[in-house]
Amino acid sequence: MNRERILLEHGGGGLLSHELVTEVFLPFFKNACLERLEDSAVVTLGDRKFCFTTDSYVIDPIFFPGGDIGSLAVHGTINDLSVCGGIPLMLSAGFILEEGFPMEDLKRITRSMAEAAKTAGVSIVTGDTKVVARGAADGLFINTSGIGRIEYPSPLSVESIQPGDAILVSGTIGDHGATVLCKRKELGLISEIRSDSAPLNGLVASILAASPNIHCMRDPTRGGLGAILAEIAGQSGLSLSIREAELPVREEVRGVCEILGFDPFFLANEGKVAIFCAAPDAERILDVLRNHEYGRDARIIGSVGERDGGGLILQTIIGGSRVVDLPLGELVPRIC
Amino acid sequence: MNRERILLEHGGGGLLSHELVTEVFLPFFKNACLERLEDSAVVTLGDRKFCFTTDSYVIDPIFFPGGDIGSLAVHGTINDLSVCGGIPLMLSAGFILEEGFPMEDLKRITRSMAEAAKTAGVSIVTGDTKVVARGAADGLFINTSGIGRIEYPSPLSVESIQPGDAILVSGTIGDHGATVLCKRKELGLISEIRSDSAPLNGLVASILAASPNIHCMRDPTRGGLGAILAEIAGQSGLSLSIREAELPVREEVRGVCEILGFDPFFLANEGKVAIFCAAPDAERILDVLRNHEYGRDARIIGSVGERDGGGLILQTIIGGSRVVDLPLGELVPRIC
Ligand SMILES: Nc1ncnc2c1ncn2[C@@H]1O[C@H](COP(=O)(O)OP(=O)(O)OP(=O)(O)O)[C@@H](O)[C@H]1O
Ligand SMILES: Nc1ncnc2c1ncn2[C@@H]1O[C@H](COP(=O)(O)OP(=O)(O)OP(=O)(O)O)[C@@H](O)[C@H]1O
Ligand SMILES: [Mg+2]
Ligand SMILES: [Mg+2]
Ligand SMILES: [Mg+2]
Ligand SMILES: [Mg+2]
Ligand SMILES: [Mg+2]
Ligand SMILES: [Mg+2]
Repeated sequence: MNRERILLEHGGGGLLSHELVTEVFLPFFKNACLERLEDSAVVTLGDRKFCFTTDSYVIDPIFFPGGDIGSLAVHGTINDLSVCGGIPLMLSAGFILEEGFPMEDLKRITRSMAEAAKTAGVSIVTGDTKVVARGAADGLFINTSGIGRIEYPSPLSVESIQPGDAILVSGTIGDHGATVLCKRKELGLISEIRSDSAPLNGLVASILAASPNIHCMRDPTRGGLGAILAEIAGQSGLSLSIREAELPVREEVRGVCEILGFDPFFLANEGKVAIFCAAPDAERILDVLRNHEYGRDARIIGSVGERDGGGLILQTIIGGSRVVDLPLGELVPRIC
Repeated sequence: MNRERILLEHGGGGLLSHELVTEVFLPFFKNACLERLEDSAVVTLGDRKFCFTTDSYVIDPIFFPGGDIGSLAVHGTINDLSVCGGIPLMLSAGFILEEGFPMEDLKRITRSMAEAAKTAGVSIVTGDTKVVARGAADGLFINTSGIGRIEYPSPLSVESIQPGDAILVSGTIGDHGATVLCKRKELGLISEIRSDSAPLNGLVASILAASPNIHCMRDPTRGGLGAILAEIAGQSGLSLSIREAELPVREEVRGVCEILGFDPFFLANEGKVAIFCAAPDAERILDVLRNHEYGRDARIIGSVGERDGGGLILQTIIGGSRVVDLPLGELVPRIC
């Protein structure tokens, strides 16, 4: 990485994010746990397995249809624990506040965090509050870190994905990204659109209970479903084949994408999970997903091919196929 | 709290910080673990006791004599685990970067974090990187959260402090705060002054091994030793008596304070611990502290009086005594 300065794309969840992590952070921090680059670190504490994860939330605007930075900060970290098989237990909450930030907004966000945590059954057990002068931050940023308990017997990991596995997604894609875009561009016309921000621990628990053959899960946040699939293809050396026609996309989201020139495949989600499982279990998992409030629009979207170096192939609606690369970095900053 | 907007003092470690936590965050997040308001949450995972803590670091300048934001972010969180009796095991690292931040500085800070973690024997196992547009943050902010294992049999807590306990401090006070002040005011003249930023896990382990009668510890960061003692007096309902003549203060720090009009008692430390222990063990603990590189200037500075409502009483050098209140909020923002 010969770039001399940080670019917005270094935070976009695409190629530049990946390079920054693998070429700057990993060489210094090096340890086996971090190098797996999964959504959470899987660690042994005492004689049991737990997972531990962190995310900072810098979303702009802080209030949006379907949530706010507070609920997002709780859901996002719960989801990173959940997709690693962790039953979320507790969170930390670190606030960076800009001088002059309205107290009412802080209370509204704190209430929303508390409600989101309560709904998901986790406690916020430790916190921190720093204040910086006007102009040194934009409103507020929140970091949440979380700890979850792992009970699923087999390892959920990119390394567990096998040729022949089915690939599922738990619902419509791009809802969160499209909502933030709309709100930012003041596209008031598309009034139905809402973020999908939601805690996935309940949904994940129900599919883990339904099948012992789930191999890997990931929450497609920054960079969208496209970025996480391209990344998994690269990490695993497996080719992943996705049928574009099966990708669930809401009409309103499709509309926003057409107006603004975005692809829902690369837009952020905050309440979705991509699942890799043994093919014979796919229908059963799909049934369980569809019976859950956050999985009604779940689909089987593709399958894992050979271990041939890795690549993401999109079978397009018009019948062709095309290789999808990890995008450089979403050009929509501060989406989460 | 009738203030409508966040003030710098809400981040100063004094009265306004305390009010913000107890009147805004606690009422929403309420749970017994958080409400103890110790440096770390003490939690049971599996059948063992651990501690979990978080801090965001927003220090300005990011490089200072004796450290940088990276080493500080590792030391600070290690120290919050250590003073709760936790043997630090692992950290998370969440970066918020401003677009345009120099890559060389990021590498230097990352290297420094990695070295600090290695020295203290902890691993950075999970991370996150967000980028915001130019002007939306000031350079970079780092959050670290940490997990430690508790082995000390008796509970280290404000609640464990007893009338008659001795109060110790592990070394000179105000070094970190004075260094940041000097650097910010470009007081080049006082060239010897350095931050005390250091990992206290080794020092704490040695005193815990030396005495089963340590009751409470705290690292006097924002607000300094004065603020944490006033807070403990308030929380415990005990009167704390401190002999001003015993407070260890470096000549250079005293000099800076005189020039700039600050009191070292209220300046931040990043490598010090205040200790409450059974009086008969105080000398033994003092010996152990003094034999450790980070405890050479340790002192017994006072004692715990009656449970009479709580108050911090400073026995002044000139022979009087004065009640010290929790300061409103340090007027030196972004010290850590
Ligand atoms: N600064 C960093 N230092 C060390 N590891 C990092 C850093 N930033 C990210 N990582 C690691 O890179 C991987 C990907 O991180 P990323 O934040 O993209 O995942 P995520 O949290 O699932 O996504 P999002 O942040 O969009 O919710 C994780 O394994 C994470 O631990
Ligand atoms: N936003 C918050 N939400 C919940 N609890 C908080 C919040 N901010 C602080 N706390 C709690 O208040 C107590 C004091 O926090 P504080 O950050 O002052 O301690 P510290 O980390 O030891 O000091 P420093 O941040 O100066 O290193 C801790 O118990 C912490 O968990
Ligand atoms: Mg994730
Ligand atoms: Mg995440
Ligand atoms: Mg703190
Ligand atoms: Mg502390
Ligand atoms: Mg701290
Ligand atoms: Mg992340």
